[in-house]
Amino acid sequence: MSTIFTEDFLLQNDAAKKLYHGYAADLPIIDYHNHLPANEIAENKTYQNLTEIWLKGDHYKWRAMRTLGINEKLITGSASDAEKFTAWASCVPHTLRNPLFHWTHLELKNPFGINQYLNNDSALDIYHTANELLQKDAFSTRGLLKNFKVKMLCTTDDPCDDLVHHLKINADAFETAVLPGFRPDKALQINNTLEFKNYIKKLSQVAQIKITDFDSLLEALKSRIIFFHETGCGIADHGLQKIPIYESFTKELEIEFKTFLQNEKDIPFSNPDAFTINVLVALCKIYHEKEWVQQFHLGPIRNNNTKLFKQIGADAGVDSIGDFSQAEGLSSFLNELDKTDQLTKTILYNINPADNEVFATMIGNFNDGSIKAKIQYGSGWWFLDQLDGMEKQINTLSTMGIISTFVGMLTDSRSFLSFPRHEYFRRLLCNMFGAEMEKGLLPNDEKWVGDIIANICYHNAHTYFKLN
Amino acid sequence: MSTIFTEDFLLQNDAAKKLYHGYAADLPIIDYHNHLPANEIAENKTYQNLTEIWLKGDHYKWRAMRTLGINEKLITGSASDAEKFTAWASCVPHTLRNPLFHWTHLELKNPFGINQYLNNDSALDIYHTANELLQKDAFSTRGLLKNFKVKMLCTTDDPCDDLVHHLKINADAFETAVLPGFRPDKALQINNTLEFKNYIKKLSQVAQIKITDFDSLLEALKSRIIFFHETGCGIADHGLQKIPIYESFTKELEIEFKTFLQNEKDIPFSNPDAFTINVLVALCKIYHEKEWVQQFHLGPIRNNNTKLFKQIGADAGVDSIGDFSQAEGLSSFLNELDKTDQLTKTILYNINPADNEVFATMIGNFNDGSIKAKIQYGSGWWFLDQLDGMEKQINTLSTMGIISTFVGMLTDSRSFLSFPRHEYFRRLLCNMFGAEMEKGLLPNDEKWVGDIIANICYHNAHTYFKLN
Amino acid sequence: MSTIFTEDFLLQNDAAKKLYHGYAADLPIIDYHNHLPANEIAENKTYQNLTEIWLKGDHYKWRAMRTLGINEKLITGSASDAEKFTAWASCVPHTLRNPLFHWTHLELKNPFGINQYLNNDSALDIYHTANELLQKDAFSTRGLLKNFKVKMLCTTDDPCDDLVHHLKINADAFETAVLPGFRPDKALQINNTLEFKNYIKKLSQVAQIKITDFDSLLEALKSRIIFFHETGCGIADHGLQKIPIYESFTKELEIEFKTFLQNEKDIPFSNPDAFTINVLVALCKIYHEKEWVQQFHLGPIRNNNTKLFKQIGADAGVDSIGDFSQAEGLSSFLNELDKTDQLTKTILYNINPADNEVFATMIGNFNDGSIKAKIQYGSGWWFLDQLDGMEKQINTLSTMGIISTFVGMLTDSRSFLSFPRHEYFRRLLCNMFGAEMEKGLLPNDEKWVGDIIANICYHNAHTYFKLN
Repeated sequence: MSTIFTEDFLLQNDAAKKLYHGYAADLPIIDYHNHLPANEIAENKTYQNLTEIWLKGDHYKWRAMRTLGINEKLITGSASDAEKFTAWASCVPHTLRNPLFHWTHLELKNPFGINQYLNNDSALDIYHTANELLQKDAFSTRGLLKNFKVKMLCTTDDPCDDLVHHLKINADAFETAVLPGFRPDKALQINNTLEFKNYIKKLSQVAQIKITDFDSLLEALKSRIIFFHETGCGIADHGLQKIPIYESFTKELEIEFKTFLQNEKDIPFSNPDAFTINVLVALCKIYHEKEWVQQFHLGPIRNNNTKLFKQIGADAGVDSIGDFSQAEGLSSFLNELDKTDQLTKTILYNINPADNEVFATMIGNFNDGSIKAKIQYGSGWWFLDQLDGMEKQINTLSTMGIISTFVGMLTDSRSFLSFPRHEYFRRLLCNMFGAEMEKGLLPNDEKWVGDIIANICYHNAHTYFKLN
Repeated sequence: MSTIFTEDFLLQNDAAKKLYHGYAADLPIIDYHNHLPANEIAENKTYQNLTEIWLKGDHYKWRAMRTLGINEKLITGSASDAEKFTAWASCVPHTLRNPLFHWTHLELKNPFGINQYLNNDSALDIYHTANELLQKDAFSTRGLLKNFKVKMLCTTDDPCDDLVHHLKINADAFETAVLPGFRPDKALQINNTLEFKNYIKKLSQVAQIKITDFDSLLEALKSRIIFFHETGCGIADHGLQKIPIYESFTKELEIEFKTFLQNEKDIPFSNPDAFTINVLVALCKIYHEKEWVQQFHLGPIRNNNTKLFKQIGADAGVDSIGDFSQAEGLSSFLNELDKTDQLTKTILYNINPADNEVFATMIGNFNDGSIKAKIQYGSGWWFLDQLDGMEKQINTLSTMGIISTFVGMLTDSRSFLSFPRHEYFRRLLCNMFGAEMEKGLLPNDEKWVGDIIANICYHNAHTYFKLN
Repeated sequence: MSTIFTEDFLLQNDAAKKLYHGYAADLPIIDYHNHLPANEIAENKTYQNLTEIWLKGDHYKWRAMRTLGINEKLITGSASDAEKFTAWASCVPHTLRNPLFHWTHLELKNPFGINQYLNNDSALDIYHTANELLQKDAFSTRGLLKNFKVKMLCTTDDPCDDLVHHLKINADAFETAVLPGFRPDKALQINNTLEFKNYIKKLSQVAQIKITDFDSLLEALKSRIIFFHETGCGIADHGLQKIPIYESFTKELEIEFKTFLQNEKDIPFSNPDAFTINVLVALCKIYHEKEWVQQFHLGPIRNNNTKLFKQIGADAGVDSIGDFSQAEGLSSFLNELDKTDQLTKTILYNINPADNEVFATMIGNFNDGSIKAKIQYGSGWWFLDQLDGMEKQINTLSTMGIISTFVGMLTDSRSFLSFPRHEYFRRLLCNMFGAEMEKGLLPNDEKWVGDIIANICYHNAHTYFKLN
């Protein structure tokens, strides 16, 4: 079976090759948003086999396997790791044109050095080769981070998290900065009445603040922000279907919220949107005070499939793209913060590409000249984190904003093997700029364009996230 | 005048040529959704002239003619067939870049062998040549189906239809399987109060079931599904602006519906969405029982132009693309069926390309590993049934789903001359895959890619629709 | 520093070069919608310097400068013209891939003959060269219009405008027809209660008609239409977030509106949508009577940033793309006019490219064969007035309508230096058609395609706007 990737993969013109090899390939990685498990870095975990590090928890692959008619037993069920791997291998040749096809083989190439198609025939060989390598130091979590030259990564953590693993990693002076990320989604989800009330109890305990009303809720959240901040956190993140249009939290709602918290029953809060937007605004003012970066991931419908959600839980591969109206809510929200000069650095991500232009133009309303590109339009997210989706995000940001100020790629991944996505991003970015150089749409000036490429791939994020 | 189409039309790279000529060109056609008149197949009709077979009923052409300033008399009015043909011929040179330009000339080439531009100069020659050919056996409806190698086609029929023509064709053992398609739209359109009540009366007579309430309505519909099933039907279809969000049909609504049916007056039903979604869910559970495929065509605004609608009726070429929210309704509907394991094979079509990603990701939520790609994202529909629209559907399905499992093209046409669209689809499909092979994005392995092409063009549909 | 633009800029194939140089390049310009200040043409103004003619009022540049971290003082503030120019020059090298990068250099090339990159190094040279040229006759407003071969331009004027400048220009028999455009937005914005009431007072005075109810409001507006018509106006324009769904203006609303006008307080009107749609319908019937062309620019959210709006006012560069539902409102509105044969020539523009297909198919519903392409889908607007946006508009109109009937480009600009956008449009148009000729998708017939190009660039607009 022939090898797959040449050194010029994705680089379809000479200018692109020069840009990539000369300006992008060797830069370290800043992965400012992902879902990596800090405990596995703290303990410098090594993995039993490729299934453990690669298939467990990867709902993209699960979804593809279900589409290809694979039984759930072989996906998330009781089958052995080897059986699950073989099942996945049998699917790979049928995934042509899906991002999984490129991801899969890029991830085998780096770190494993396997430059061969995965399929029924090659499955066992690849499984054994990779499993053997996984036992080596260079393939422990820390070994992998070193291999990929990850300078900084930011995880996603609940306000109630005690961050012991981050503290341990800090104490070790590990060369990759492993920062916590503050994600208070559960404190906003008042719609899930009983879960919300339980969450508030937990938060109350962790923060050691009695939460009886809106103010004490914010006090508790603020104390967690302070704790996160002291542990090195400088980034918050939020996942919502949409940002509600701003309205004030009236006295009546404050009183209702008090009673709501006292009551153990499953009685819904009358105006969940007002609650959400007001907690958000209050949180964001604290982020501003702390000079954090705030992120918003907007638009999906999660857990569409009740049956699989009950069986497997969240992140089961049954989420999809929503079509909510986003513009007015976003506008009113950012403006509310900007009015009082309390809008901190912000990154907006959309899941529906039909919203690309809404997001890419929204950011331009709130840049105030204080710093370069304070408000960012984030890289292609989730379903859009693939060749076509990333190209569209780059094109939209280019035409509607200023691409040279873009903070670039992140993996958003749960896996230590996803870092080649940065390479993929850099290659396609260079390919796009190179193609336009050759067409005379961009200056035929390698240094000029190359420096912009390097900024997007690394230096902009380095400045934006205030790294050393 | 020079010839138009070379054998490599649309195939812009060598890999594409090999894929098309080696794997796609010679496959038979499965046209699993169209609006062909079964009576014309039953009687093996021949046509007087090109206007009769080509312009009558083609609202795409009517729309283009109106845009080009042609008087309605020459479109749907009292002008002679020859005059109408000449009027259309005079328009064709001005339709460059509209799909009509390619369709028109492809349809002249196959079956008529006319490889020449249609315009004022060539009009009469082409008209006479084609009219002469139309008198031959090979150009009767059955002759044409043979010529295009149509293995199966599925028409679109009202539940009240007696299917005599399908029965006649079946009895003839005609080599193309001509199946009825069950389309109960009128039983859902409770908004058109008086028309709906008349329809219910008709349905009641045909089904020989007295319809007095929700249950007897479903009983009547079920009896028609059974009749269609016995006549070979295995496919249902539904046209709606959007699927309403699921809600139960309460006792109160059941009582209201009873009174509503008794009353002859034009008093609207209070909750048409609840009615629609509950009839739909009930129907779909029966389709599941019968192992049918169900289709949903979502999103258009029909009959925008009251004046022309009154003059000509529906399908007058005054329909356009709507911008309804689709995601939450679809999700709740499919989930409702999936919860009880009653979601049958399903194909979703959108009319607004801004919804492509919503649809292409929705399907992935409900594949359960039972069969390959149980839930399908359908080929570019109506306004999207053209080069750009089909490429976008293929790209979206590729990146958000698994293109190798796609059941491929259908004509959705009212004309026996539309089958070259399958050729068009196959050519552009090969062109897309071939281009990526040459760029190193797909494996440079003709057999691997070619088999996937053949599956999309024929074999996937063959399996999905359980043909022999 | 090397030169930038060759004579084949944007023309990436031989057919394109032939089309552009042979059929498009030399045609005059019809700029049927812009925001040029008529007074500056009346007085044949010359400009002090490049900042005055180029940066003042250009909120596109302001927005880019803010994004690049430039202080407001150097954008719209108290800095000197030279400082502002230098600030902009320092930004330009970082605007790669934004339309500003091409616009900037095209505008330096024509009229100034500067074919050099603008940046820190070249800033002073370019500033002085251009400033010197600006003092010459050929660079006065009329000189520039002559240079760009502008045959007709249409400005944007409030119904209360006295049009003295247009009258003066007419009287001068200036060779460019400078027509007023009727834009009654303020008469529709009943939501801004107090501003609206003040506006009605002003309109009342100007029209010399006492406005006390809906009828007298329309009478006053009609008198202004008649005045505009007499001054050569034949085009109206409207800017809205969306067209409301048609509903009648009931007796109750008429009575409420009377009281509303009498009352000086800030009490909102109960049904602003009904008011808006009914004024619109009434206006459009008058346009029809006068055989005007009516335009609708739909979809933006304006003045998102309250802080900058208070500081600078409207058009401060803090507008962005909205995501309103457009289809049903548009359909009901156009149909309401069409029902009684009172739908005049109409051009629809959308700001959100996700609506492209909705708009491009809506127009096809209301072409009635009376004239070619009575209802037009307008060229890429505002954020979409760039390479990608224009290509998408052209592609959508091509596949969903009849591109050969398109009335083509307009600048929509506030600056006398924006006319090279017509050149840009013509180049990219030729490039698109040429590419398809070379691929065999279009006839390889230069005359056939070239005539269509010339029609789109000039002749269609000439006929549509009934120019001499």
